[in-house]
Amino acid sequence: MFTVIVTLDVRPERVDEFLQGIAVNARASLRDEPGCLRFDVHRVTGVPNRFLLYEIYTDEQAFRQAHRAAPHYADWLTVVDRCVLNKTNLYATPVFDQDIPERA
Amino acid sequence: MFTVIVTLDVRPERVDEFLQGIAVNARASLRDEPGCLRFDVHRVTGVPNRFLLYEIYTDEQAFRQAHRAAPHYADWLTVVDRCVLNKTNLYATPVFDQDIPERA
Repeated sequence: MFTVIVTLDVRPERVDEFLQGIAVNARASLRDEPGCLRFDVHRVTGVPNRFLLYEIYTDEQAFRQAHRAAPHYADWLTVVDRCVLNKTNLYATPVFDQDIPERA
Repeated sequence: MFTVIVTLDVRPERVDEFLQGIAVNARASLRDEPGCLRFDVHRVTGVPNRFLLYEIYTDEQAFRQAHRAAPHYADWLTVVDRCVLNKTNLYATPVFDQDIPERA
């Protein structure tokens, strides 16, 4: 498994547009990508325009290739371009695979 | 719901002890705390002694009171004291509650 934690700072005046865009991307990723196991969208406490995505994939290729080749990902990039000021990705691996409920 | 993202830097010589301790804490939290919905343990890519916990609770009280009052939490604190160099907590809230699989 391969986990991506994304931190995003969103232009305050475009938070609603961002939320619509990330809802579409998160739901389409879970629905259409067999390799996308989890996609949670959070708002960070105390920083109203900072958001955090928690995504788990079956493996790194499912993120780097299948996810990024999906049509909803292209739409998402236009949302990022319009709404996001800063975006950083952190990568990680579950230590106890057997404890991840979505494991294959 | 209430989400906690913990980043921990572990003493390199005590990673194994840390992993045993966090496995006990994560599994006991899920098993014994009705308010603990999710507890994933990750190793951060590229930083061998950095770990990340992803915990979702039904609400803030389930984390601040029930979780911290649990007997396994007291054991966990001794593991932190022995093994952890730095620990930072980030708090967040799911934006789309209905999309969190563990929602009540």
